[in-house]
Amino acid sequence: MLGSTGSIGRQTLDVVRSLPEYFRIVGLGAGKNLDLLAEQVSEFKPEFVNYSLVGRDEKDTRNRLGVMGCVYQSLEEMARNPDVDTVVIATSGVSGLGATLAAVKAGKNIALANKESLVAAGEIITGEAGRSGARILPIDSEHSAIWQCLSGEKQPARRIILTASGGPFRDSSKTQMARITVEQALDHPSWKMGKKVTIDSATLMNKGLEVIEAHWLFNINVDDVVVLIHPQSIVHSMVEFVDGSVKAQLSYPDMRLPIQYALSYPDRLANPDLPRLDWSNFSQLTFQQPDMTRFPCLRLAIEAGRKGGTYPAVLCAADEVAVDLFLSRRIGFVDIARLVEQVLERHRQVSRPSVEEIMAADTWARETVLGLIKGDNK
Amino acid sequence: MLGSTGSIGRQTLDVVRSLPEYFRIVGLGAGKNLDLLAEQVSEFKPEFVNYSLVGRDEKDTRNRLGVMGCVYQSLEEMARNPDVDTVVIATSGVSGLGATLAAVKAGKNIALANKESLVAAGEIITGEAGRSGARILPIDSEHSAIWQCLSGEKQPARRIILTASGGPFRDSSKTQMARITVEQALDHPSWKMGKKVTIDSATLMNKGLEVIEAHWLFNINVDDVVVLIHPQSIVHSMVEFVDGSVKAQLSYPDMRLPIQYALSYPDRLANPDLPRLDWSNFSQLTFQQPDMTRFPCLRLAIEAGRKGGTYPAVLCAADEVAVDLFLSRRIGFVDIARLVEQVLERHRQVSRPSVEEIMAADTWARETVLGLIKGDNK
Repeated sequence: MLGSTGSIGRQTLDVVRSLPEYFRIVGLGAGKNLDLLAEQVSEFKPEFVNYSLVGRDEKDTRNRLGVMGCVYQSLEEMARNPDVDTVVIATSGVSGLGATLAAVKAGKNIALANKESLVAAGEIITGEAGRSGARILPIDSEHSAIWQCLSGEKQPARRIILTASGGPFRDSSKTQMARITVEQALDHPSWKMGKKVTIDSATLMNKGLEVIEAHWLFNINVDDVVVLIHPQSIVHSMVEFVDGSVKAQLSYPDMRLPIQYALSYPDRLANPDLPRLDWSNFSQLTFQQPDMTRFPCLRLAIEAGRKGGTYPAVLCAADEVAVDLFLSRRIGFVDIARLVEQVLERHRQVSRPSVEEIMAADTWARETVLGLIKGDNK
Repeated sequence: MLGSTGSIGRQTLDVVRSLPEYFRIVGLGAGKNLDLLAEQVSEFKPEFVNYSLVGRDEKDTRNRLGVMGCVYQSLEEMARNPDVDTVVIATSGVSGLGATLAAVKAGKNIALANKESLVAAGEIITGEAGRSGARILPIDSEHSAIWQCLSGEKQPARRIILTASGGPFRDSSKTQMARITVEQALDHPSWKMGKKVTIDSATLMNKGLEVIEAHWLFNINVDDVVVLIHPQSIVHSMVEFVDGSVKAQLSYPDMRLPIQYALSYPDRLANPDLPRLDWSNFSQLTFQQPDMTRFPCLRLAIEAGRKGGTYPAVLCAADEVAVDLFLSRRIGFVDIARLVEQVLERHRQVSRPSVEEIMAADTWARETVLGLIKGDNK
């Protein structure tokens, strides 16, 4: 379990806690929240542990964590540990790429919540998985929905209908959007998530990244992935087949379901802690088209996905830095899309990039955003 | 193809016409509409044919049909014909039972549109199918939806959510319902179907029969089948799994899709004649609880399904006669439920009935309805 103290990591451990007879934690890895990691280690008693040693004394840290009985491993070592059946990757940003590739090459089941690795390096990851037999099991609620709808189907999807709540600014005017505060943007109407993905949901960048993710996970053209706004967040996505039949997956918005499905696949496990849809209290499901002018990030992501090469890596990296700048109140909400677009315009594509070329594009994009900001402030 | 001139029969031949490279008609059987049967024989050139000879001269009829090149077979012979892979059973009423059982015992794929056989003799049919290896492939849009949602799932459904358009009187008051005419009852808002099933849809008896059908097809308790009114007829039914996940199947209401799926299963075939949901023109799906007081037939059917034995056969037969009486304007719309209820109250159940006991219960129920009517008219 890589990224155990983040939102997905904590919910994954909730699922494990609900179903102790099915799952055993072999290793836990977390970045910064040492206090929570210490609690998790004491509860789940993994054999292996990973944490950032940057700026820390190793012995002191281990004492503080109370993990003297655990073996420290790098994320990559943990990802290919022979005791591990399934690697849950819930680290954030492109930093998860190394561990993802290690797990893929080792032929593991990879329960993947980190979308940036797949967006930036989808061709490499799916290519390696094809060679090693690794299975990539999506944890995103939308991709889990698509995967569930494809279960048992012999033919691939003709179209994927990726639903989006539309975020807190679904019905805001352009004028209102120019004045959005950090607090407003962090107040998502249906999902409780980490800060980065919550802002990405408010800009619809998250949905754009998911279009690219769907393209790689389900081997479908970017243009055959249709985004549809669905404010109730009950239908998590749909698949259209060649005969015109459509299947949808529904549930209350609760990440524990897609997490559990990825861990239990191909079985489903009864879990009394997971909510059941209450049909007696159910009136309507609404759908509308996304507005690409108010939400330019969605358009930018779809364009980057269509172009391919290093464009998606640049999109991810520029967005990550821009969202950080917004969260630290250095830029406005609408500046996120503006900066990402400017970086994409300046980018020189590398086709079929290597991991090194992807990481170089990532670094270039981050520096370019910061350079643009300095230019703005002159 | 048994019942080729009815609504499902004609639509089945539409599918065959759209996909001539996949399907070949071995035999056609029809009851009364000899003109249409003659056209179908001339177009599809079956080897075998069946039609009613009651009150007809065989040679004259064959000449008139232009089927001198076809071999006449009984429905049962046709159903077990060794050239046949799949028997489509779209005859109406319990008269389809003999042919259904013949096909089941012969281990055929049975694309079943006739719900009465399964309602009246579900235990016998599913038991025989278990022995012979016959597969019962539902053609009803609801059961096809459930079947599609169960595809690839290792665990059975925890609950089935059977949707119903609610028919033309979904929002009518009790007073309005007392004055319903035959024309109003035949004017279904979303589906074009035969007369009997259209009236059954208006009383919600059809949905009740489908609850019992689902019970047998998917080996689920009657009380785990939830009926939900969904006026748009886009979501054709849903399945809830043990982990709380729900899958739904959606399409425009067009019987050719479930027919084609039953014929092409486990493949799906591209058919340009089948409509695709237009997401750009899609706003809402609504759901509401069924009203068992305005629609007592739904309650009666669920109760009969729960009790089992010969009750479902009595329900089917009483309803068939009552609907006939309504269509011939001898009773009112609300009398259908009243008569069915009175017959069910008078019935003495036979548990685990044989085919003969089912047919006897059927005959008893028909006579009892007619007796009650005579009593009413005294």
